[in-house]
Amino acid sequence: MQIHIAPKTLAAQDRAVFYGDGLFSTIAVQQGQALAWAYHQERLVQDSQRLGFPLWDASALDQAVADTAAQMQSGVLKCLLSRGSGGRGYFPPNKPALQVYLYSYPFPDYSSEEVCVRLCQTRLAQQPLLAGMKHLNRLEQVMARQEWQDSHIREGLLCDTQGWLIEGCMSNLFFIKNTRLYTPDLSQAGVAGIIRGRIIDLSRQLGISVSVGQYRLEDLRLADGVFICNSIMGLCSVNQLLDTQQQRLQQWPAHPLVQRLKSALLTQQWIAS
Amino acid sequence: MQIHIAPKTLAAQDRAVFYGDGLFSTIAVQQGQALAWAYHQERLVQDSQRLGFPLWDASALDQAVADTAAQMQSGVLKCLLSRGSGGRGYFPPNKPALQVYLYSYPFPDYSSEEVCVRLCQTRLAQQPLLAGMKHLNRLEQVMARQEWQDSHIREGLLCDTQGWLIEGCMSNLFFIKNTRLYTPDLSQAGVAGIIRGRIIDLSRQLGISVSVGQYRLEDLRLADGVFICNSIMGLCSVNQLLDTQQQRLQQWPAHPLVQRLKSALLTQQWIAS
Repeated sequence: MQIHIAPKTLAAQDRAVFYGDGLFSTIAVQQGQALAWAYHQERLVQDSQRLGFPLWDASALDQAVADTAAQMQSGVLKCLLSRGSGGRGYFPPNKPALQVYLYSYPFPDYSSEEVCVRLCQTRLAQQPLLAGMKHLNRLEQVMARQEWQDSHIREGLLCDTQGWLIEGCMSNLFFIKNTRLYTPDLSQAGVAGIIRGRIIDLSRQLGISVSVGQYRLEDLRLADGVFICNSIMGLCSVNQLLDTQQQRLQQWPAHPLVQRLKSALLTQQWIAS
Repeated sequence: MQIHIAPKTLAAQDRAVFYGDGLFSTIAVQQGQALAWAYHQERLVQDSQRLGFPLWDASALDQAVADTAAQMQSGVLKCLLSRGSGGRGYFPPNKPALQVYLYSYPFPDYSSEEVCVRLCQTRLAQQPLLAGMKHLNRLEQVMARQEWQDSHIREGLLCDTQGWLIEGCMSNLFFIKNTRLYTPDLSQAGVAGIIRGRIIDLSRQLGISVSVGQYRLEDLRLADGVFICNSIMGLCSVNQLLDTQQQRLQQWPAHPLVQRLKSALLTQQWIAS
């Protein structure tokens, strides 16, 4: 495994370029620490096995990420893992030279705590072979994100081609009904976000029931509260839902459970304050 | 649009790397000519509109491809079109600086005219938003191509998640029954190959009926003849079909219609001799 910190260029025949043959993870850095890195690394390891990558030694990457985070102090660290160059067309090399690219960015401005989201017309395909992974085949998200320009709309919600709610373009979705948490099953589509995983685990530890299942827009509309999450924004209450024509569909008050979960994740240093 | 001929590196933040946000086409070059380039170019234009790329002037690319082909004389020219760098996450820049990368390779060894193919376990997702395009999100093909190592197996056939036959990993599929041609509909999955399009048009000109529809493995097994095609291999009769366990499922003789179509495509200089 070769690690490239803040690369300006990469090999023009890298399989990430040709086929999106790789993975990535986006990590919050605060006070020189890569938050929840152990979970990001675990997902990279698991998903690279699913893609058929050879086993890799995580310790060199751990060190590079720690060094880069220390250097950055604060911001967004993007870790991209590619199968590297070579192979015959789609057929990967027998012994791929995995490449890691580490990029750093300032934190985006996510100042408002309560956000407006919209429904996307774009539907996610059902593909269990790739579902859950944060791989580099992200055209669905690029297409969905092109549906709106209005910067007041934080996120677009995506259903799959069968109409099941899945996630946001860049976040996972939870809703609350009678103090129970609900979040879409991601076995057919979607990215199993690190913070989503932490929320599920932590909620159960806190005695909060979590259902992972198949839900429709109608289920969401009946919720007492809704929030989205990812490693960079943490948890954000969804205040308003717009339809695909940007007309108001539903409003929710901030639910106290969101603040409770947020505090618990902050205590664990899994999200940035 | 910036055109890079035989690049060694590209920008590390190119959206082709991050999201597979681009397209490609693989063109046969013979006697210094890029075969069927007009059709490749037309598909690139159409698909870049589907992805929301800005309009681009094809003449500069025409010239670069012609020059590169003249230089190469013979081989495979890969033309990759990316949305370039920039944007906020998935959100593309308002005025993307499109990047074209031209790569050249020797022809692969496709000496045998009759080929053995196998059925893949990997299923293609149904995604009408992306179906037909030769975009850079090709993990399904990478996964499918990892199913076999045996170099005697030229190609793997893919069904979609609903069990409809779609294509090969790197080729399109046709079968013949009672002198009629059949090829899978690609509105839900698959790549609308240039040679597939030429075969459909040319067959109709020659008075050969072509049906584009939804077919199952059982339809294929009842065929009188089967062939696969792409821009590099041209047309190849499928002699033998193996199942996912590499057991023989079906054999077909070479059908005279394949040679007839091949000759007609050669006359048009759409495939290499």
